[in-house]
Amino acid sequence: MKAAYYEGNKRFSIGESKVIPPGPGQARMEVAYAGVCGTDVHVFLGHMDHRLTPPQVVGHEAVGTIAEVGQGVTDLKPGDRVVLRPTDACGTCPSCKRGHINICPKLNFIGITSAGAFQGSWTVPAHLLHKLPDDVNMVHAALIEPLAVATHDVRYGQVTAGDFCVILGAGPIGMLEALVCREKGATVVVSEVNASRVKLARELGFDVVNPSETDLVKYVFDQTGGAGADVVFEVTGTQAGADMMTKLPRTGGRIVIVAIFADPMMVDLRAILWREYTVIGARNYVKEDYDEAIRLVVEGNLPLEKLVSDIRPVSRIQETFEEIVGGKADFMKVLIDSSAD
Amino acid sequence: MKAAYYEGNKRFSIGESKVIPPGPGQARMEVAYAGVCGTDVHVFLGHMDHRLTPPQVVGHEAVGTIAEVGQGVTDLKPGDRVVLRPTDACGTCPSCKRGHINICPKLNFIGITSAGAFQGSWTVPAHLLHKLPDDVNMVHAALIEPLAVATHDVRYGQVTAGDFCVILGAGPIGMLEALVCREKGATVVVSEVNASRVKLARELGFDVVNPSETDLVKYVFDQTGGAGADVVFEVTGTQAGADMMTKLPRTGGRIVIVAIFADPMMVDLRAILWREYTVIGARNYVKEDYDEAIRLVVEGNLPLEKLVSDIRPVSRIQETFEEIVGGKADFMKVLIDSSAD
Repeated sequence: MKAAYYEGNKRFSIGESKVIPPGPGQARMEVAYAGVCGTDVHVFLGHMDHRLTPPQVVGHEAVGTIAEVGQGVTDLKPGDRVVLRPTDACGTCPSCKRGHINICPKLNFIGITSAGAFQGSWTVPAHLLHKLPDDVNMVHAALIEPLAVATHDVRYGQVTAGDFCVILGAGPIGMLEALVCREKGATVVVSEVNASRVKLARELGFDVVNPSETDLVKYVFDQTGGAGADVVFEVTGTQAGADMMTKLPRTGGRIVIVAIFADPMMVDLRAILWREYTVIGARNYVKEDYDEAIRLVVEGNLPLEKLVSDIRPVSRIQETFEEIVGGKADFMKVLIDSSAD
Repeated sequence: MKAAYYEGNKRFSIGESKVIPPGPGQARMEVAYAGVCGTDVHVFLGHMDHRLTPPQVVGHEAVGTIAEVGQGVTDLKPGDRVVLRPTDACGTCPSCKRGHINICPKLNFIGITSAGAFQGSWTVPAHLLHKLPDDVNMVHAALIEPLAVATHDVRYGQVTAGDFCVILGAGPIGMLEALVCREKGATVVVSEVNASRVKLARELGFDVVNPSETDLVKYVFDQTGGAGADVVFEVTGTQAGADMMTKLPRTGGRIVIVAIFADPMMVDLRAILWREYTVIGARNYVKEDYDEAIRLVVEGNLPLEKLVSDIRPVSRIQETFEEIVGGKADFMKVLIDSSAD
């Protein structure tokens, strides 16, 4: 079994995956698929060199099968299909004590601060594994981690049936939020400027507006009888998104901040006051968001395979990241088949 | 009975108060006190000329006694002490239908869009009057309107006993929020740079930090064992306040936007995401906020008289507004004694 080692400075090397016997409380899984996340691209570009030690395997959106379990692990056995929740909180800080284990300042993000999933064999803390049914669609299951980001965001947005939701930015997370909102019974408008993402969102059946061509504010108010949107998800991380997010909600509406903004942005705080908006920061996920994402995958109603742009062996990691960074391919989500060399 | 008429261009004239018999659903009150609000100062400065028609009486923070009631008004009688809730919503728009009568886009703000309280006799919609006990302290009661802003803000901030609250800006509303938070059992830190406001906040028993002299962020984290504040109230309307508000809360903490920001501000949206803050716009009040403010005034535990800088007859309105605008006096709240010529 192979592994892709990040060597620093936009280079992966391919080597053997180290088979590490699980210690107490650990489990070793054979990774089936591991999705390439925007965070992995940041690693590739060297933005996160301060958080890892090359050569290091990265990747954290992983699904696979238990190979062996360590001492004290009683709820998992070899052959079980599992998905990893890669955020390991300290459990003792003020955040954790309030249940905010997703935003623990000492968060160990497995696949960044410790070895990741772009390899065949992966030894991880067993308490972070969620068991899946034996007949689960493993390609769908490979999207559980980003889907749990979406279920977290939608939960924070308090989306219920009949709500009118606007998704600003239809990358993988925005697209998954759109799917989860629709599954909740909400009406969804997707705002996106990238042509291939517009196309995919339309193929998924969404009402898509390109705000560079259409007046999105007028569109949303027209569609809602002059009321405005119940919930707006800001997933662009741009000034244009920060401007738009305070123009769309109804009075008393909600804005969920999902994108990681590189810099402070100009924000119309007067609109937040005047129309009594609630702006909600939503980051990562907790156990219940994983449970909800798993429930959605098991139900099988979400067309998640349409978000998978390609499935590639570990040996093609270098070219895959180069294509993503170079913008040569309009990828939505690429899965690495960690079982394939 | 006299009335102060705003004539435009920083001028009031003093004339007779017109005694208007109440029509159906109206009541005529004899105004005891009417507080001078920052909004009235904006009127004086000509900022709201588009919303009123000089010569017009302004003022909306009013308490008084019923003189007569119009047809169909059965729950009030002459002699009753009353306070006005000056925001009259349309009742039919999407906001009102959701109960957001405080942010109705068609809000009639009595004292701005119709005649106000700086006069002896005032005829108003009876359904906006809240009855007070006969033995209520009428000077305290004159602060019910701004106190209801504070009870609204504190309710939106979900402040409970044991919370650690920071008030950024100790003008009248910030000071009232501090009092309401303390009454709820919260620990309160007041941030203020103005020396006379610092002095008053200390006289009221608050822990006051001048952020131009003391590192407020360090102070708050030191005081909370490294956790941060549960709730921050932004009442400065400045870039410094917008910067500070995202530095103080604990993970999962709340920021209540109270100030009316004249322009968009730079805001650290990444901090809102990273620490999962909730930012809540809070404007005006609804009936239950008035009920809570009245309860607090009737209980009599708040030292509201300390916020009253002076009580002046209608005839001294011009000089009062000139002093406020000129910064000659360090007023917190001036009451106009509308019964005194």
